[in-house]
Amino acid sequence: MKPTMKSLLFLQAAFYLPFTLALWPRPQNLTAGNTPLRLAAGFSIEISGIPQVPKDLSDAVTRTTKFLTTDKLQLLVPDRGASLTDAVNSAETLHSLTVTLSSSASSDVKSISEDAVAGLGVADESYTLQVPAGGDATLTANSALGLFRGLTTFEQLWFDLGGTTFTLQAPVHIEDAPVYPYRGFMLDTSRNYFPVSDIKRTLDAMSWVKINHFHWHVVDSQSFALVVPGFEEIAQKGAYSASRVYSPDDVKDIVSYAGARGIDVMVEIDTPGHSSVIFKSHPEHIACPEATPWSRFAGEPPAGQLRLASPATTNFTTDLIKAVSSMFPSTLFNTGGDEINTNCYAKDNLTQEDLASQGKTLEEALDTFTQATHSALADAGKTPVVWEGIVPLAFLESLQAHAASVEMALEHQVNLRNDTIVLYAVYFVLSSTLPPLTGRNVYRVWISSEHVGSVAQKGFRLIHAASDFFYLDCGGGGWIGNNINGDSSCGVYKTWQKSYSFNPTNGLTEDQFDLVMGGQQLLWAEQSGPSNLDSHVWPRAASSAELFWSGPGGDVKTALPRLHEVGFRFIQRGVDAIPLQPEWCALRPNACDGDA
Amino acid sequence: MKPTMKSLLFLQAAFYLPFTLALWPRPQNLTAGNTPLRLAAGFSIEISGIPQVPKDLSDAVTRTTKFLTTDKLQLLVPDRGASLTDAVNSAETLHSLTVTLSSSASSDVKSISEDAVAGLGVADESYTLQVPAGGDATLTANSALGLFRGLTTFEQLWFDLGGTTFTLQAPVHIEDAPVYPYRGFMLDTSRNYFPVSDIKRTLDAMSWVKINHFHWHVVDSQSFALVVPGFEEIAQKGAYSASRVYSPDDVKDIVSYAGARGIDVMVEIDTPGHSSVIFKSHPEHIACPEATPWSRFAGEPPAGQLRLASPATTNFTTDLIKAVSSMFPSTLFNTGGDEINTNCYAKDNLTQEDLASQGKTLEEALDTFTQATHSALADAGKTPVVWEGIVPLAFLESLQAHAASVEMALEHQVNLRNDTIVLYAVYFVLSSTLPPLTGRNVYRVWISSEHVGSVAQKGFRLIHAASDFFYLDCGGGGWIGNNINGDSSCGVYKTWQKSYSFNPTNGLTEDQFDLVMGGQQLLWAEQSGPSNLDSHVWPRAASSAELFWSGPGGDVKTALPRLHEVGFRFIQRGVDAIPLQPEWCALRPNACDGDA
Repeated sequence: MKPTMKSLLFLQAAFYLPFTLALWPRPQNLTAGNTPLRLAAGFSIEISGIPQVPKDLSDAVTRTTKFLTTDKLQLLVPDRGASLTDAVNSAETLHSLTVTLSSSASSDVKSISEDAVAGLGVADESYTLQVPAGGDATLTANSALGLFRGLTTFEQLWFDLGGTTFTLQAPVHIEDAPVYPYRGFMLDTSRNYFPVSDIKRTLDAMSWVKINHFHWHVVDSQSFALVVPGFEEIAQKGAYSASRVYSPDDVKDIVSYAGARGIDVMVEIDTPGHSSVIFKSHPEHIACPEATPWSRFAGEPPAGQLRLASPATTNFTTDLIKAVSSMFPSTLFNTGGDEINTNCYAKDNLTQEDLASQGKTLEEALDTFTQATHSALADAGKTPVVWEGIVPLAFLESLQAHAASVEMALEHQVNLRNDTIVLYAVYFVLSSTLPPLTGRNVYRVWISSEHVGSVAQKGFRLIHAASDFFYLDCGGGGWIGNNINGDSSCGVYKTWQKSYSFNPTNGLTEDQFDLVMGGQQLLWAEQSGPSNLDSHVWPRAASSAELFWSGPGGDVKTALPRLHEVGFRFIQRGVDAIPLQPEWCALRPNACDGDA
Repeated sequence: MKPTMKSLLFLQAAFYLPFTLALWPRPQNLTAGNTPLRLAAGFSIEISGIPQVPKDLSDAVTRTTKFLTTDKLQLLVPDRGASLTDAVNSAETLHSLTVTLSSSASSDVKSISEDAVAGLGVADESYTLQVPAGGDATLTANSALGLFRGLTTFEQLWFDLGGTTFTLQAPVHIEDAPVYPYRGFMLDTSRNYFPVSDIKRTLDAMSWVKINHFHWHVVDSQSFALVVPGFEEIAQKGAYSASRVYSPDDVKDIVSYAGARGIDVMVEIDTPGHSSVIFKSHPEHIACPEATPWSRFAGEPPAGQLRLASPATTNFTTDLIKAVSSMFPSTLFNTGGDEINTNCYAKDNLTQEDLASQGKTLEEALDTFTQATHSALADAGKTPVVWEGIVPLAFLESLQAHAASVEMALEHQVNLRNDTIVLYAVYFVLSSTLPPLTGRNVYRVWISSEHVGSVAQKGFRLIHAASDFFYLDCGGGGWIGNNINGDSSCGVYKTWQKSYSFNPTNGLTEDQFDLVMGGQQLLWAEQSGPSNLDSHVWPRAASSAELFWSGPGGDVKTALPRLHEVGFRFIQRGVDAIPLQPEWCALRPNACDGDA
C-alpha cells in the first residue's frame, strides 16, 4: 500500500470517526487511532496463563468469537461503507486476542458466576484492552468478570463489509471500570408472564451493555409463578396456568445463565402489600382478598395484603422469604414494602383483633413484621432491599392529609437495619391537580425527585429507580378498562434522552454521594408481555447502563450515534430493539438534532 | 345426556355469556342461545352451488379450516374452561358448514380479489351465518367477498378445551354488513423499511377484523423503496439499500395477497412536499434538497419538495404518478398534499424564476400542479385522495398570522375535483402555548377536530384519520436527537378506548353524514420498524375496525372482553398483539374497570 493511499484512508477514517468507536457504555479511558484493521482469516481468541480456566470464561470467549462473525454490522453511513471496500480489504490484519489475568490478580481465579454474586461492588470489573494496528491484541483484568467485560467491549469494535470484519480506528487502548457497582434492570413477571426464554434473551442483552443486576419482581398480587420448595401450593393455585410457572430448575437455569454473564439476580417478594394471590392457597394470611371496590383497598386490582399483625402470618412470610432466598445465591433480597393500604387493614377484623390483643398500632405491627423478615435475611447473610415507600421520611409529613384521604400509609415507623438498601423509585409528586379517581394512580401521591436526600439522610444506601426517568412502561395510556381518557400511572413515555440525563447525586450532599450504589430501568407489566418486552426495553435500557457505568453528564449528541449502533447490533443478535429515528437519521449522526 | 345435566350446562353457559360471543367486529344482528356445541371430528367446510369457485374463496375456506384446529384459544376465564370439560365433551356436534351464494346473487360470481378493488363501497360485504345447536351450519352471501367476511366471523365462534373445538352459545344466527365502506390502516414504509413479510402479516391481521383498505404511505422524504417501472433510478438512489426495496413483483405479491383477503391497496405518493429523496436521482426536480437548518425548510429532516412551478417537474410528477397508479388496481390513489413549506420555495431561485415567467403565485402554481396530477389519475379511472392540508378551508384564515410565522402554507387555492376524497387527519389545534422550536411539531399548527365540517361543507367525501384518535405512533416521546424533554408530534399514546370512542359524524350536519366514507388508524414510522410493528398496531387498530364496521357508540365495558379475545387469538396466529391489561384482568371481564 502506497503512502498516498494510506493518507487518503486516514482522511476517510477521520471522517467516519464518530461512527467507528461505537462503544457502549463509554469506557473510562480510551485512545484510538485512525488506521484500518481487519480480523485475519484465522483470527482466534486465546486464554493464556490461567491454570484452571473457568468454564463460563471459556464459554464467554466462544460467544465473542461467534459474534465476531455473526454480528455482520454495517457502518451506519449512507453507503454502509461501500466506498471503503478497497481500504478495508487491504488493511493490516489482527491475528489474535490474548486473554489473560494481570500479574496482580489472585492466582485462585473465581468464575464469572462467582464474581457476579460476590456482593455489591465486591468483584473487580476493570479491564485493559490493547488492540494494535496489526498483529496481536491483549485483554487483561484482575478477574474473570473483568475479562468478560473486556470481551464485551472487544466485540463492539468491529463492523462488517462484504464479509470482512474490520475497524477503522486502530490502534485502540482502553482502560475501563464502572463508576457505580449497581447497574440494573427490573422485570415484573406477575402482571403478565414471561417465558424463561424471554428472560434469558433479556439477560444476554443486559450483559452486552454491562448491566450487572437483574431485579426480578417475580410475584405480585396478580399471579405467583414462582414454585418455592415447601410452598408449592402458592404457585399451584396462584400461577396463571400450570405450565406458566418458574420451577426451581428454571430458577437455577436463570441464575446460572445470568451469573455466566456477570449478572446477579435479586429476587423480590413484595410484603406485606402486593400479595393478594397468596389468599388462593392460604386464605388465612391475606386481608381484604379481592375486596371491591378495589380502589378503596389497593393501588390496582386485585386487593389483598398479608395480615402483618398476625404472628402466624409473620412466621409464614418469614419462612417463605427464607425458602425463596435459598433459591438465589445473591446477597441482595428485596422484601418490597411498597404501597401499603391502610383501609384494607382497617376493614379486616382479624388484623384489628391481632392489633388489639397485642396493644400495637398498625405501624408498630409493620415494624415487628419487617424486623422478622429482615432478621431472617440477615441470618442467611443477605442484605435487605426495600422500596422507598417503607422508609420513614420526614418530608412526607406535609402529605399526610392527602395520604389519609386516599388511605395509604405514607410515613412508616419501621426501624430498618443500617445496611438496608433503598430502591428510590416511586417519586411522590404532590400535585394540586390530583389525578382522577380511576386507575392505578388513585393511591399515588407524587413527590419530586429532589427528596432523594431524605433517604440519604437516614444513612441508607440507595439504588435509583426513578419513575420519572427510568420506568419503561410509562406512556402506554391507562389500562383501566372503562377509562376512555386514561393516562399511565407514571405519565409520558420516558425517552432514552430523559433517562440518560438523570443526575444520580442530585439532591445529595457530597458526603452522601457514596451512598448511591447505582440505578436501574424497570418494566412493570400491566401492559407488557412477551410481545412488547424487547420493544419497551431496547435500546432504551442501555441509557442507564452507560449512565451508571461511565458516570453521569454524557452528551446526548455524541451518545445517539453510538446508541443507534447498540440497537442495530442487538437486532443482528436477535433482540428486537426499536428504531429511535428514521434510518435516514441513523445513517447521518446529528442530522436530525433540533439545531441541525 | 339427562335434562338436569342440560339445565346445569345452560346455567354455566349463561354465566360465561360475555366470554363466548367474542366476535370482533360486532355483527349488526346477532342472536345466540346457550347450548354447548362442538365441532365433529370430521367437520368440514363445503362450498356449494357455485359453478366456478374463485380460487381465493377456496383458499379462504382452507385458511378457516386450518384456524379451527390451530387457534386453540382457551376461554378467558380463571380456570380456562377446565370445569366445563364434561359438558363440552358431551355436547352435540356440528358436522359441516355449507358456504353458498344467496339466490339473489349474480350467477357471474367475482373473486374476493375482484370485489376488493371494485371501488369504494361497490362490493357487497354482507353475509348471513346460521349455526344450529347440532348438525350443519350455513353461510350465505351475495358475493365471494361477503362469504369471506362470514368465514372470518365463523372462525371467531370457537374455543379450545383439551383438543375439543367448541362454543357454549349455539344456536347462533348472524346477519351482518358494514356501516361504513372504508375501514383502513395506514403504514409508513419510508421513515423505516418494513419487509414484505411484515406487510403480509399485517394484511392477514387486518382481514381478521374485516379491515378492507390498506393505505400504503410507501415513500416520503427519507427513502424511496418503490421500484417504479420507467423510474427505477429513484429507488436505486433513494432506497436505504439495494435489498430493501419493493420491486414490481413485490407489489404484485402484496396487492394479490391483500385482494385475496378482501383488502384494497391505496398507494400514496405525497406531492409536492415530502419528496426530498427524489433529488438523489433527479436533482433538477427538487427545491431546497436537504437544506439546513431543516426546521426552516420542512416539518422534519430532510427538507426538499418537488419544484411545483416547473413544467418539467410537473410532467415528471404526472408521469411518475401514472406509472405508480398502473402498478395498483385500486380505484383510489393518494397524491398527498401534506405540509407544504413556503420558505423552501421562497429560497429556491428556480421556483421563483418559474413563477415570475408564468406570472403565477405559488398557490396558482400549486393549483396547476395538482390539476395535472389529478387529471392524469382521472384519465386512468382513479379517484384522487388528498390529506386535508391541501383543501381550501375558510376557518384556517384565523391562523394565517401564525402560519406565516412558521412558513407553512395553510390555506390553498387549489381547485379540487368534486370526487376528491379527503383524509381528515392532522387536526390543527391552535394553541396559545405553541410547542418549542424543536422537532417535528415546529411547523404544526393544531386545530380542533370540530372543524371537520369545513371539509364537508366543500362537498368532499372524507375518510377519518384523526391524529388525536387514530395515530398509533403517538406517545413515543420525541425522536429529535438532542431533545431531552421531547414529546411526540401528536401528544400522548392513543389508547384503544380513545379511538373506539371516536364519533365519525361529530361536527357534521345530518345531510353531510353520507360524505363520511369511514376511517383508519395509522402508523407513522419515525420511531417504528419491524421490531415494534405488531406491538404498536395490535390489538389497538381493531378498535377502529369495529367502529367503522359496526358503527359508533360501542361501549368500552362490553368491548374490552372481546378485544382481549382478539389479542389472544392474534398471538395464537403469530401476530404479536400486546396485553391491554394484566392477565388477571383479562380472565375477569370488567374486574379492572375503574368502578369495579
